[in-house]
Amino acid sequence: MERREFLALLEQISRGELTPESAAKKVENATYQDLGFAKIDHQRKRRLGFPEVVFAQGKTTGHLLEICAGHLEAHARLLITRLAAEPAEAVQKQFEGGVYNATARTLSFGLETVKPRGHVLVVCAGTSDLPVAEEAVETAKLMDCRVELLTDVGVAGVHRLLDHREKLEQARVLVVVAGMEGALPSVVGGLSAAPLIAVPTSVGYGASLNGVAALLAMLNSCAPGISVVNIDNGFGAGYKAAMINNLPPLE
Amino acid sequence: MERREFLALLEQISRGELTPESAAKKVENATYQDLGFAKIDHQRKRRLGFPEVVFAQGKTTGHLLEICAGHLEAHARLLITRLAAEPAEAVQKQFEGGVYNATARTLSFGLETVKPRGHVLVVCAGTSDLPVAEEAVETAKLMDCRVELLTDVGVAGVHRLLDHREKLEQARVLVVVAGMEGALPSVVGGLSAAPLIAVPTSVGYGASLNGVAALLAMLNSCAPGISVVNIDNGFGAGYKAAMINNLPPLE
Amino acid sequence: MERREFLALLEQISRGELTPESAAKKVENATYQDLGFAKIDHQRKRRLGFPEVVFAQGKTTGHLLEICAGHLEAHARLLITRLAAEPAEAVQKQFEGGVYNATARTLSFGLETVKPRGHVLVVCAGTSDLPVAEEAVETAKLMDCRVELLTDVGVAGVHRLLDHREKLEQARVLVVVAGMEGALPSVVGGLSAAPLIAVPTSVGYGASLNGVAALLAMLNSCAPGISVVNIDNGFGAGYKAAMINNLPPLE
Amino acid sequence: MERREFLALLEQISRGELTPESAAKKVENATYQDLGFAKIDHQRKRRLGFPEVVFAQGKTTGHLLEICAGHLEAHARLLITRLAAEPAEAVQKQFEGGVYNATARTLSFGLETVKPRGHVLVVCAGTSDLPVAEEAVETAKLMDCRVELLTDVGVAGVHRLLDHREKLEQARVLVVVAGMEGALPSVVGGLSAAPLIAVPTSVGYGASLNGVAALLAMLNSCAPGISVVNIDNGFGAGYKAAMINNLPPLE
Amino acid sequence: MERREFLALLEQISRGELTPESAAKKVENATYQDLGFAKIDHQRKRRLGFPEVVFAQGKTTGHLLEICAGHLEAHARLLITRLAAEPAEAVQKQFEGGVYNATARTLSFGLETVKPRGHVLVVCAGTSDLPVAEEAVETAKLMDCRVELLTDVGVAGVHRLLDHREKLEQARVLVVVAGMEGALPSVVGGLSAAPLIAVPTSVGYGASLNGVAALLAMLNSCAPGISVVNIDNGFGAGYKAAMINNLPPLE
Amino acid sequence: MERREFLALLEQISRGELTPESAAKKVENATYQDLGFAKIDHQRKRRLGFPEVVFAQGKTTGHLLEICAGHLEAHARLLITRLAAEPAEAVQKQFEGGVYNATARTLSFGLETVKPRGHVLVVCAGTSDLPVAEEAVETAKLMDCRVELLTDVGVAGVHRLLDHREKLEQARVLVVVAGMEGALPSVVGGLSAAPLIAVPTSVGYGASLNGVAALLAMLNSCAPGISVVNIDNGFGAGYKAAMINNLPPLE
Amino acid sequence: MERREFLALLEQISRGELTPESAAKKVENATYQDLGFAKIDHQRKRRLGFPEVVFAQGKTTGHLLEICAGHLEAHARLLITRLAAEPAEAVQKQFEGGVYNATARTLSFGLETVKPRGHVLVVCAGTSDLPVAEEAVETAKLMDCRVELLTDVGVAGVHRLLDHREKLEQARVLVVVAGMEGALPSVVGGLSAAPLIAVPTSVGYGASLNGVAALLAMLNSCAPGISVVNIDNGFGAGYKAAMINNLPPLE
Amino acid sequence: MERREFLALLEQISRGELTPESAAKKVENATYQDLGFAKIDHQRKRRLGFPEVVFAQGKTTGHLLEICAGHLEAHARLLITRLAAEPAEAVQKQFEGGVYNATARTLSFGLETVKPRGHVLVVCAGTSDLPVAEEAVETAKLMDCRVELLTDVGVAGVHRLLDHREKLEQARVLVVVAGMEGALPSVVGGLSAAPLIAVPTSVGYGASLNGVAALLAMLNSCAPGISVVNIDNGFGAGYKAAMINNLPPLE
Repeated sequence: MERREFLALLEQISRGELTPESAAKKVENATYQDLGFAKIDHQRKRRLGFPEVVFAQGKTTGHLLEICAGHLEAHARLLITRLAAEPAEAVQKQFEGGVYNATARTLSFGLETVKPRGHVLVVCAGTSDLPVAEEAVETAKLMDCRVELLTDVGVAGVHRLLDHREKLEQARVLVVVAGMEGALPSVVGGLSAAPLIAVPTSVGYGASLNGVAALLAMLNSCAPGISVVNIDNGFGAGYKAAMINNLPPLE
Repeated sequence: MERREFLALLEQISRGELTPESAAKKVENATYQDLGFAKIDHQRKRRLGFPEVVFAQGKTTGHLLEICAGHLEAHARLLITRLAAEPAEAVQKQFEGGVYNATARTLSFGLETVKPRGHVLVVCAGTSDLPVAEEAVETAKLMDCRVELLTDVGVAGVHRLLDHREKLEQARVLVVVAGMEGALPSVVGGLSAAPLIAVPTSVGYGASLNGVAALLAMLNSCAPGISVVNIDNGFGAGYKAAMINNLPPLE
Repeated sequence: MERREFLALLEQISRGELTPESAAKKVENATYQDLGFAKIDHQRKRRLGFPEVVFAQGKTTGHLLEICAGHLEAHARLLITRLAAEPAEAVQKQFEGGVYNATARTLSFGLETVKPRGHVLVVCAGTSDLPVAEEAVETAKLMDCRVELLTDVGVAGVHRLLDHREKLEQARVLVVVAGMEGALPSVVGGLSAAPLIAVPTSVGYGASLNGVAALLAMLNSCAPGISVVNIDNGFGAGYKAAMINNLPPLE
Repeated sequence: MERREFLALLEQISRGELTPESAAKKVENATYQDLGFAKIDHQRKRRLGFPEVVFAQGKTTGHLLEICAGHLEAHARLLITRLAAEPAEAVQKQFEGGVYNATARTLSFGLETVKPRGHVLVVCAGTSDLPVAEEAVETAKLMDCRVELLTDVGVAGVHRLLDHREKLEQARVLVVVAGMEGALPSVVGGLSAAPLIAVPTSVGYGASLNGVAALLAMLNSCAPGISVVNIDNGFGAGYKAAMINNLPPLE
Repeated sequence: MERREFLALLEQISRGELTPESAAKKVENATYQDLGFAKIDHQRKRRLGFPEVVFAQGKTTGHLLEICAGHLEAHARLLITRLAAEPAEAVQKQFEGGVYNATARTLSFGLETVKPRGHVLVVCAGTSDLPVAEEAVETAKLMDCRVELLTDVGVAGVHRLLDHREKLEQARVLVVVAGMEGALPSVVGGLSAAPLIAVPTSVGYGASLNGVAALLAMLNSCAPGISVVNIDNGFGAGYKAAMINNLPPLE
Repeated sequence: MERREFLALLEQISRGELTPESAAKKVENATYQDLGFAKIDHQRKRRLGFPEVVFAQGKTTGHLLEICAGHLEAHARLLITRLAAEPAEAVQKQFEGGVYNATARTLSFGLETVKPRGHVLVVCAGTSDLPVAEEAVETAKLMDCRVELLTDVGVAGVHRLLDHREKLEQARVLVVVAGMEGALPSVVGGLSAAPLIAVPTSVGYGASLNGVAALLAMLNSCAPGISVVNIDNGFGAGYKAAMINNLPPLE
Repeated sequence: MERREFLALLEQISRGELTPESAAKKVENATYQDLGFAKIDHQRKRRLGFPEVVFAQGKTTGHLLEICAGHLEAHARLLITRLAAEPAEAVQKQFEGGVYNATARTLSFGLETVKPRGHVLVVCAGTSDLPVAEEAVETAKLMDCRVELLTDVGVAGVHRLLDHREKLEQARVLVVVAGMEGALPSVVGGLSAAPLIAVPTSVGYGASLNGVAALLAMLNSCAPGISVVNIDNGFGAGYKAAMINNLPPLE
Repeated sequence: MERREFLALLEQISRGELTPESAAKKVENATYQDLGFAKIDHQRKRRLGFPEVVFAQGKTTGHLLEICAGHLEAHARLLITRLAAEPAEAVQKQFEGGVYNATARTLSFGLETVKPRGHVLVVCAGTSDLPVAEEAVETAKLMDCRVELLTDVGVAGVHRLLDHREKLEQARVLVVVAGMEGALPSVVGGLSAAPLIAVPTSVGYGASLNGVAALLAMLNSCAPGISVVNIDNGFGAGYKAAMINNLPPLE
C-alpha cells in the first residue's frame, strides 16, 4: 500500500465513510494476507525490492497453488524454486505465463516485464553444477539483470578459463558455482575486479561431505572480494548478484 | 605498466635503444618485484582496483619492513592487518604517514589520498566484536568509501536496532558483524534492501565452536541477499563492501 | 498404588487373607506391567505428573496396539508422537476417543479431561517448522495448558513479530521453534520476560547440517533465559513448557 | 521510565516548561545510556525482570570500571561473571558492597536487597564442575531465589544421589551440572517432576571434545522435561531457573 | 591342520608317497580355502577360539550361499549377522540346523553343540535398542556362554534398574546397550564390579547424530572399567563378553 | 563396613548402648566421608573391588593433600593419576610409601601389599605413547596383576611385532596403546585370543585431530574382541584389564 | 593439434586459402569441442597423457551417449566410471568394443590397444572393498600398466598378507584399498619400498562415518611414502599409480 | 645383514667358531638395536631404501642425543625433523656434519654423500607455507633427488604460476604445498602430467579449521593424479616424491 492510498483511507475514516475497524483490516490485507498456514508479505517488494520467493521443497501441491494464488493476485512477478517437474505442471495448468526451467527447477512468472541491464556473469565449474548455476541465472534474470552463463571451466584446465578472461574482466558482478574442491572462485577472483559471490555445490562424494569441503575452501579463499552463500543456494547468489548489479550510481 | 608505456618500450627496442633482454626485465619489474621470499604484485592494483594487503600475523618484523619498503616505494596506499602494537611501532618509525588503529590492529598508509564516497554501514552486534568491525571500517575507508559504524545493537534488544532503521535503509552496502548465535544479519537483512556482507566472529564459548556456530547461522539466513566471509575476516568484508560501493553506474 | 491401598494390602497379609507371594505380584502390577518387550510404568504419572508418552517411530503397528492397550486400561490420557497416518488409523479403529493431528503426527487420548490454564505461547518461524510446533502444542494441551500458536514470524521480517509484542509479553511460558539460522529465540527472548524453550528444527539444507546450525545458534543465544531441546523435539519442548506453566504458586 | 513519569514529561512540554529536544534526551537517557563503546540498557530490568549482566572475559579493567559506574549509578543490583580475582579486586576497591565468589568467579552487588523465595536446587556431578555450578547459584541468588547446592553426586555412585531423593522431589526448579558423559540430568530428571535445566561442562579430556560429548548427551536425554544451555553456561542456567522459580501463580 | 597331521604329511613326502607340490596344496587348503572372491580362514578358530563370522550386509544371496557352504563343510558352528529375513530363508532352505532370530537379524548354526557356562548379562536401555542387544545375546550364546537379557531399564527410571541390582552384582560379564544419551553404562558400571562392555546404538534423532552422542558419552564415562565398541556393534560386544567369560582360571 | 560390624552396631542399639542417631552417623561415616567439597567413598572398594582413584589434573595441591589424607587413613592403596612432578613431591613429603612414575605421571601407595597374578600385557606402538601405556601398567600393577610392557612395535614394522608373537598368545589380557592411525590393536587382535582393550592416544598432528583419528580406527577394527576406552585413558584401560585378569574361575 | 599442423594452417591463411575466422574455428575444434552442456578437451591427452574420463554418476543416458560420441570420434580409448549396468548396456549397444566390469562399474574402450608394462599391485582388504579396488585395476590397465589384484588380506589376519610378501616387495607401485579402520596401508607400507597410494572406502558402519575413519587413519599412517586419495576413489588411485608406473627412466 | 654375511655366520657356527647364542645376538644387532625406550631399525634402509627418520617434537634433548648416537654409528645419513633451534645446536655440537635448515626445522647428516638426480619440483602457495615446503625439499634432497623450490605462486594470481608453466611440465615429480583454500594442486595438476603429491598446511584462520579445509579441498580435487598427505607433513611428501623420483626404469 503506497502512502497515497493510505492517506485516502484515513480521509475516508475522517469523512465517516469507513469504520476504523474495517480500515485496519484493509491496511493489514495490503501488508500481508493471512492464509492461515502462512502470512504473505506484499510489502516485502517495497522494502527489499523484490516479491517473496517460494521455496517449493517440502510443500504439497495444494499449498503451493494457494500460495501462488495469493501472490499472483497482487503481483506480476513470482519465482518458485526447488520445484519438481510434476507440481510445476500443476501450477502452470492453473496459472498462465509461468516459464519452467527443468535444469534449474524454477518456475518464473512475469519474465515478460523484465528490462535487462548491467551484466551478471554466472561461471560454472562442471556440468553437474549446472542446476545450481541455472537457479542463479533465473533468479537474477527475473530481477532485471542481463545474465550470461559460462560453463565447464573448472580449475584443472585453467586455459579454458583464461580464454574467457576478457569476459571475466567486463562483468559487473560475478557468481561462481563449484563443487568438489571449490577452487574456481579463488582463480576467477584473481582475474577480475568485480564483486564475486561464491556458491559451493554438493557435487562430489566421500570427503566432499555433501559440499562442506567446497564451502570451507571458498570461505578460506586467498583472493579478496569473495563472499559465500549456502551450499547449493543458487537462488541466494542470484538474488545477491541482482541487488549489487542494480545499485544506483554513486551520488 | 600501462599500454602506452609498453608500446614506448617496444618502440625503443625497434629503434635499437634497448635490448630485448633488458626490456623484458623492465616489464617484469613493473609487474612484480621479486624479494626472494615473496613476489610483490604491483599490477594487482590495476587488475583488482587496490594494492595488495599485508597480513602481518606470523611474519617477523624484519620481513614486514622489507615488504613495506617494496610496496611504499611504488604506491601511496598500503594496508597492514593483524598487526600487533609493537611491530606497528617499528614500521611507523621507519615509514612516515602510517595511521595505526589499535582496536582493528591495522596500519594504513595513504589515508590522506582518500576521497570518501557512497555509504558503507558497518553494524556490530556487541563490544567484543569491535576489533573485527573496525578492521572492516579501516579497509573500506582506505578504498575511498564513506564508512559509518553502528555498535552494540544485538538482536536480544531489537528496539535498539529499530531506532536506526532509517540509517539501515539508506546504506548503499551493509557489513554486519556478530559472534555467538550470529543472528544479526538475518534481522538487518530484513530491514534493508542493500547488499549485505555478514562476518561471523569467534566471540563466544563452548558450543560457539570458535565462531563456527555464527558462521553456520549466517550461511542459513532466511533473509535473501546475504553472503558470508570467513570467521573474523573483517578485512575481507570491508574489501568486498568497497568493491560493491565503488561500482560504476549502470550504463 | 497409593499409601492407603498399600497398607490395606499389608493388613490383608497379616489377617492371612492374602499370601505374601500374591501380594507382591499385586504391588508389582500396580507399579509396572511387564509386556515382555517393554515395561509400562504406571507410577510414572505420580512421580512426574504425566503418563509415559509413546514414541511411535520404529515401532510396528502390532507393538503399538499392545502398548496402547496396556496404557489405556490404566489411564485416560495417552500421547503417541511421530505417528504416521496409517498406523494412527489402526490405533483409532481399536481404541475410541483418540484425536489425530496430521501435521503434528500425534494421537491424543483423554483430551476431554483437560482443564486448560495458564498460557503457553508456541512461536513458529516458518510454515515448514509447523510439524514440530504443532507437536509442542498437542503435548502442552494434553497436560492441561491453555496453548496458543503464532506462526510465520521469522526474523527476516521482524515487524511481523513486533505486531505480536503484547502477546509475547503476556505469555507465561514461551516455546520458540525455528530451523535454518535458528535466530528467532534470540529476538523473542529480548522481547519477553517469560521462560523460553527453544526448539531447533531440521528445516534447511546444505550448511544447516540437518538442524545442527540452528541448534548451535540457540545454544549461543545472547538473550538470557533461553534453554534448548533436541532438534525437532516438539514433544520435549511442550512437555517442559507444561511443567513450568503448571508450577504451583510460591509458598 | 514508568508511564506516570512519561506523561508528566509530556505535560511539561505542553506547558512549555520543557523543550521537545531536551525531553527526548531525558526519555533516551532513561532507556539507555551511551558510553560510546557500549549502550547500557536501563529499561531491560523492566522488560526482562533483571538488570543486564556484565560478561567480564575479554574486557579490560578500565572498561569494566566504566560499565560498572554506569550500572551502579542507576541500580542497586549488578552481576559480573567470568571475572578473575585481580580485576575483581580493582572493582571492589572502587565500588562498595560487592561480594566476590572465587570459585564461581562472580562479583555480586546488591545481595543485601535480596528476598529469597521458592527453591532452586543446583545439583553438581563432580568437584571439577563446581565453578559452573556456583555461577548458577550466585545468579539465581541475586534474582531473589532460595538456592541450595548439592555436590559430588555423579551417576557412577547412584546411591549417593538416591540419598537425596526427597530433596530432589521437593525442589521447585532444578539445575543439573555435569561434564564428561553428562548423564546426571537424565537420572535426576527421572527422580523429580520439577523443570530441569541441564548444564554441560567442559570437564573431561579426549573424546569429551571440550564439553560437546556432555552437551550431546543432555540434548538426547530420554527423561522428558529437560532443556539445555551452552557448555559451562552456569549463568544462563541460574538465570533461567530464577525466571521459572519466580513465576507468579496461575490466575 | 594339527602338528600331528602336518608331520604325517612331511613323512609321506620323505617316503616319496606325495610330491612336495601337492603337499603344499593340502597345507594351504587346511589353512584357508580360496573361493576366488574371499579367502576362508579355517585356522582362525584355533588362533582365536571361534570360527569367522559372516557379515551379511551388502553381500548377495549367491555369495552368502557359497561362503556358508565353505564354512559349514569344515565346522559345525557359524554365525551370520545383519541378515535380512529373505536371504535368511534362502540359507535355511539349503543348509539344515540354522536358527534365525528376527530381532537380532542373526542366523546361528551349531547351537545344539553349545555348553552354556559362566554368566553374561546383557542390559538394554529401551525396546528400540533390542536388535543390537539380541545380536550380542546370540553371539555370546553360540560361544558357550550362559546369557541373560534384561530389557527396558533406562536411566530415567533408575528404580527399575535398582530392582535388578542383585543380578547386576552377580554377572560375570556385562554388556550394556543404549542409544540416545548413552548414560546407562555409567549407572550400571557403578553398581557392579564385573567388566562392562558398552554398546552405543543409533537409536535417537537430531543431535544423537546417528549414535555418535551415545558413543561419546560412553567413552567419557566416569565409571571405571567400561570399554566401548562401535555403534550398533552387538556382535562385537557379545564376542568380547564371551572371550572374557570363557577365560581359564588364574593359574 | 562389613556385615559383621554392622550387626554388632545394631546389637549395641538393641542393648541401649548406642542411640540410633549416633549409629546412623557411624554407618554413614563408614560409607563415605564428607570433606565439604568432595564425598569420599570408602565402600567403593567393596562394591567395585578397588578404592577410588584420584584424578589430579585441575586440582590444587591443597585439595590433593586433604583428599589423600582422607583416603590413606582408611586404606593402604591409593592411585593418583595425571600428577605433575611438583605436586607429587609435595604429596610424597607428607605421606610415606608413595612411588612416583614420572613417565606415567602416577603416584601409587600400597605397592608393597600387591600379590601379582595372571598376565596383563601392555603393548605400545611408539615411544611417544609411553606415558599412556605406563599409566595402564601402574594401574593394573596396583590391582594385583602381573604386568608386562612391550614397546615400540608399530604396525609399519610388523616383523618386530611378530618376534613377540608367543608373548601375545600367552597373555591373559591385552592392552594396546597407539596414536596416529591407531592400527596396532587390529593387528595384535588378529594374533591373540586374549580380550583386548584398545587405547587411542593424542600422539600425532594435523588430521589426527588430537587422537580422534586413532579412536575412530580402533572402534572400526575388523578384528573381533576389541573394545576401546577414551583417548589417552591409560588408567581406564589398566583398570578394565585388571578386572578381567582377576576374574574368578568359571564355576 | 600439433605444431606442424598449426603452421600449415597459418600458411594457408597467408596464402589466402583460408579466412582467419574459419582458421580460428579449426584451431578451437582441435582443442575442445563444444557440446553446449560440456566442453570436451581433446588436447588433455597431450597435456596429461590420457584422455578425459567420464564420471557417469548423475548423468542421464542421453548425455552419456552424446559425450561418448564426441570422445570416441577422436580417440580410441575412453573410460567411463560409476556406470550402472543399465546405461552401460545402452552405451555398449551404440558403440562397439566397450568392455564392462560389473564389480568396478566401469566401461573401457580401447583395451585392445593397451601394451602392459611395469607392475601395479592393487591390494584389497576385504571383499566389500572390491568395487573400489577393481575400479583402480581397470583404470591402470587402460593406461598401459600390467596390473595384479590381491584380495582379502586384511590386517586382522596378518599372516595372509605375509604369505604375499615377495609380491609386495616386487611391485613397482602399490594401491592399497581398505575400509573400516583403514590400517592396511600402514602394514603394507612397512613391507615394501614401492610408492603406495592408499584408498579409503566407505565400507563400515557407525563410527566409520562413511569412510572418514579410514581416511583419517591413512592420512596419519606412521609408514612413510603413503599418500591418500578421496574415499572410494579407485579411479584416482589407479590413475596416479599409472602415472608413476609409466615414468620414463632417470636421465 | 646381507645374505653373504648371514651364510658366513652360519658357517662359523658349523665350524664351532661361534656359539648359536652369540650368533643369534649378532643377527639381532644387525637388525635392530635396543635402546630400552626405542628399537632402532637398521635394516629399514635395506627394506625401504632409506634410514629411519627422527621426529624430534616431544622428545627431550637427552633422548635425541642417544637416538642420534645409535643411528650415526651405523649410517652416514640421518634426517631429524620438527627440530627447534636450541636442541639442534646441542645435537650439532656433539655430532659433526649436520646441516640445520631453520625454516624447515630439519637437521640433515650425510648431505655430502648425496648424488642428485631426476627432478622434484616443490611448489609453494604463500610465504607462510614455506616451513612445510622446505621440509619436503630437505627430505627429498637427502634421498638423492635434484630438488627445486618455486614459491609464492598462489591461485589468486594465476599468471604468476603460468609464467613457470614450462618448469611444471618438465618436473618428474611435483610436491604442491598450500594452506587456506588448498586450491593450488588442482591448478598445477591441470598443467603438468607429473605425479603430484599435495600437502595441506595449517596456514589460515577461522573456517580453515587448522588445515582441514585445505585437506578436504585437495582430497576432492577434480584434477586426476593427485594424492594427499597429512596436514603440514612436508617430510611425508618429500619422502614419497623421492620414492617416485628414484624409481628404476621400466624393464
